[in-house]
Amino acid sequence: MRLLFIGDVVGSPGREMIREYLPKLKRKHKPTVTVVNGENAAGGKGITEKIYKGFLEQGAQAVTLGNHTWDNREIFEFIDDASWLVRPANYPKETPGNEYIIVKVNQIEVGIINLMGRTFMTPNDCPFKKAEELIYKIKKRTPVIFVDFHAEATSEKQAMGWFLDGKVTAVAGTHTHVQTADNRILPQGTAYISDAGMTGSMDGILGMKRDNIITKFLTNLPARFEVDKGREQLNGILIDIQPETGKANKIERIQISADHPFYE
Amino acid sequence: MRLLFIGDVVGSPGREMIREYLPKLKRKHKPTVTVVNGENAAGGKGITEKIYKGFLEQGAQAVTLGNHTWDNREIFEFIDDASWLVRPANYPKETPGNEYIIVKVNQIEVGIINLMGRTFMTPNDCPFKKAEELIYKIKKRTPVIFVDFHAEATSEKQAMGWFLDGKVTAVAGTHTHVQTADNRILPQGTAYISDAGMTGSMDGILGMKRDNIITKFLTNLPARFEVDKGREQLNGILIDIQPETGKANKIERIQISADHPFYE
Amino acid sequence: MRLLFIGDVVGSPGREMIREYLPKLKRKHKPTVTVVNGENAAGGKGITEKIYKGFLEQGAQAVTLGNHTWDNREIFEFIDDASWLVRPANYPKETPGNEYIIVKVNQIEVGIINLMGRTFMTPNDCPFKKAEELIYKIKKRTPVIFVDFHAEATSEKQAMGWFLDGKVTAVAGTHTHVQTADNRILPQGTAYISDAGMTGSMDGILGMKRDNIITKFLTNLPARFEVDKGREQLNGILIDIQPETGKANKIERIQISADHPFYE
Amino acid sequence: MRLLFIGDVVGSPGREMIREYLPKLKRKHKPTVTVVNGENAAGGKGITEKIYKGFLEQGAQAVTLGNHTWDNREIFEFIDDASWLVRPANYPKETPGNEYIIVKVNQIEVGIINLMGRTFMTPNDCPFKKAEELIYKIKKRTPVIFVDFHAEATSEKQAMGWFLDGKVTAVAGTHTHVQTADNRILPQGTAYISDAGMTGSMDGILGMKRDNIITKFLTNLPARFEVDKGREQLNGILIDIQPETGKANKIERIQISADHPFYE
Ligand SMILES: [Fe+2]
Ligand SMILES: [Fe+2]
Ligand SMILES: [Fe+2]
Ligand SMILES: [Fe+2]
Ligand SMILES: [Fe+2]
Ligand SMILES: [Fe+2]
Ligand SMILES: [Fe+2]
Ligand SMILES: [Fe+2]
Repeated sequence: MRLLFIGDVVGSPGREMIREYLPKLKRKHKPTVTVVNGENAAGGKGITEKIYKGFLEQGAQAVTLGNHTWDNREIFEFIDDASWLVRPANYPKETPGNEYIIVKVNQIEVGIINLMGRTFMTPNDCPFKKAEELIYKIKKRTPVIFVDFHAEATSEKQAMGWFLDGKVTAVAGTHTHVQTADNRILPQGTAYISDAGMTGSMDGILGMKRDNIITKFLTNLPARFEVDKGREQLNGILIDIQPETGKANKIERIQISADHPFYE
Repeated sequence: MRLLFIGDVVGSPGREMIREYLPKLKRKHKPTVTVVNGENAAGGKGITEKIYKGFLEQGAQAVTLGNHTWDNREIFEFIDDASWLVRPANYPKETPGNEYIIVKVNQIEVGIINLMGRTFMTPNDCPFKKAEELIYKIKKRTPVIFVDFHAEATSEKQAMGWFLDGKVTAVAGTHTHVQTADNRILPQGTAYISDAGMTGSMDGILGMKRDNIITKFLTNLPARFEVDKGREQLNGILIDIQPETGKANKIERIQISADHPFYE
Repeated sequence: MRLLFIGDVVGSPGREMIREYLPKLKRKHKPTVTVVNGENAAGGKGITEKIYKGFLEQGAQAVTLGNHTWDNREIFEFIDDASWLVRPANYPKETPGNEYIIVKVNQIEVGIINLMGRTFMTPNDCPFKKAEELIYKIKKRTPVIFVDFHAEATSEKQAMGWFLDGKVTAVAGTHTHVQTADNRILPQGTAYISDAGMTGSMDGILGMKRDNIITKFLTNLPARFEVDKGREQLNGILIDIQPETGKANKIERIQISADHPFYE
Repeated sequence: MRLLFIGDVVGSPGREMIREYLPKLKRKHKPTVTVVNGENAAGGKGITEKIYKGFLEQGAQAVTLGNHTWDNREIFEFIDDASWLVRPANYPKETPGNEYIIVKVNQIEVGIINLMGRTFMTPNDCPFKKAEELIYKIKKRTPVIFVDFHAEATSEKQAMGWFLDGKVTAVAGTHTHVQTADNRILPQGTAYISDAGMTGSMDGILGMKRDNIITKFLTNLPARFEVDKGREQLNGILIDIQPETGKANKIERIQISADHPFYE
């Protein structure tokens, strides 16, 4: 079986890329399950119900989130009913939303976990212990488990990859919005990449207008962050999985942009 | 002309990779100039005179550094005489060491700049302004300028890339120890990559023993960081340059490891 | 001579305390010069022209700021004409606003400097070097220099105090909104206190509504910060100065609140 | 009844102050229980068994810690047997050492809790929830509960004070090494102070040699931190308690130094 994961979708340019290329990617690669990180989907900050449902309609089975989960306050209205939306599990346990979900496609069940790092980020509960706790629960149902680890520091990301090697199918980083070139299968069979990259403007800074951000670095004055609307890119990964064992055979990077045109 | 840059060399496994593969890479790619980031070359922390000279003997023309520059106190004894060593230029101006260097090979001069980011890092002087100041000086001699931007946050790295687009030949990030897959030529002709990656153990965490680091994340207790000695990797980039204009034509990622064997 | 300094004024409760007690404090203590930190004066975030002018009318000769300087965008419209407003001097040098001011009262000139720390804060220019640069300028006119060091970490605050001991009249910390009990005259004659405290609600958290902040600590969800409107407090310091030498003879803490009633 | 709490004891100057003044303070104020924060007692970093036992012999009934708990590796050898030593309770739950202790003096039991903040500090478990959990346990035995909240940010400290108002006898901050002047009884009867201050050198920076620290701020080069040996100070608080209800009647600051001589 095969899992397609698409990194942080940023604003309308990101959503357009999903609308245009998700069907094409599915036709080409025939993934069993598709997961999209949607933490920046609504204007760069958070997600709305309409966008979430759009992702499902366009072919995703699950949507993961991150530190921007709560930025669009609409989330508090629909998160309780959003069965295929997973929020970082290591937020305090009273937090609304799913700590994990299990997606079922063609009799195959896939557990989906989203966790947040703590280095340079919000001091949530320990993501390593939370991972263990959730894996224990999900393993009763299925050995196929996908982890979106939304974190800043490469040390914490690699630590999570090695910590979960052999326990989950894949650990894919998100949050830096830059795809890394370290995709590999770890020795115990877990697919790993430090960051899957982002989906949105290819000429912005992390998908946002670059002038405001450069000015902020130069002046230290407050800046308005706006989604950049220019040429677009899509970044993600494709993982080949043995469904019986949950082990990954292969992890491949996907890039679509003016520099990396898509071929059917 | 062509420039080869090799990312953070970590401890003896990293140095062994340089010793073994730098000659082979030079034979294969025939770079005009080779630059090595050596901030972690001595036991993962800093650099010694012997190691610095070894890099030159093995074929590098310049060695860049980073936040670990001062970790091995031997640096204070030889930095004043190390003509081909560049420390981050935005340390306070009384700091010992070169703010920039100009390397001359076959009548071609190449300016080398090393800067440090400030997001999640030491509050040094503004790297953007320091870059402008040094570029102004170097441009009087040569349009070919290579910038190693040693930084944590992808926003700051991309901001530097766009800020310097058209003003320098290349902006290559270091520090995260993970190679990114976003190498590209920006619209005004500057080669860019968020991180060139590291050179050292391929099964450690950032090149260090992984058990200690995982334990630290789990327990929050102090940990001893030691260089990991296992299978090795080398990461870097290769840039094709128009020497008359200083513009880059091409930026290519280099990876050598068990997963990515080297072919002559 | 005598200088009265009042710590971060937070919102309307803080402004009411100034309106009510500044005249009384002036009557009682007869300060030559009065300085007010106004970085939180407008709804807890920034300052407006009307508020700035109000402070002057109510008896202040100078208004200092901090990391919230730019939060109310009105600042950009009046800062160029606000002769008695000082912004943190170690913002990049193109920043609008005064790097220092010299107040003249009864033939006595007093230099006023505002600086920001960098530990856990914005990476501005080095506050220690900026202090030296400005002191060198001001000393040509007057030996009486007051420094409001707006910083988070006590290590950086104490370092500034000792660094400037004998060079300025006083180093008074701000930003933590909690008055410290370490007011003293350092050996070379500089008055020092790590933090002068705040002026505003006495039952909020740093002057803001406490429920939202406690909820934020418990949930890690975004919170709306609002000025708390309850019982009020005023915090500041009073410094006795030898005008010829600029040395301080005495530094005294001032607190006015339900627990510390004001006596004429 | 009365509780005496002495803030972070730093190195041998701090220990000498304890040796000299703890007996005198006990004679003068007759506290029922004395608690000492010992996180910096051994050379500024951590604590040894000998020092811990010394504090008990000199009259303390309990010793609290902080982020430096583990800096002297001897701790791992004696912490399991140190019945009157409390480490920050919100370290991960496998951490060695007591999460809380109950001290019994003259038939009165006093619960002692030590917690660490997370803002600008180690990402431990939530200190607010951990506080609730431990208070629930201790309340079954006694209403008298003392909390040493070792934290950096005043917002987090005040939030803890208000969160625990009416639930514990006192919340006393530590870690900044600077005594604050905001000691008060909160409306529901909890004594509060943002920081009790430190015990050690009065002319160092946080008790450490100041030249090295100032140089570090100026140069951003690594610095060796050493305990400052000069004139000394002791900082702490004294709390009057109703033993039946656990409510505090009064909280008073204690300072002993050349500027604040001790009177019998
Ligand atoms: Fe994102
Ligand atoms: Fe994110
Ligand atoms: Fe490095
Ligand atoms: Fe580094
Ligand atoms: Fe403030
Ligand atoms: Fe502030
Ligand atoms: Fe301490
Ligand atoms: Fe501490």
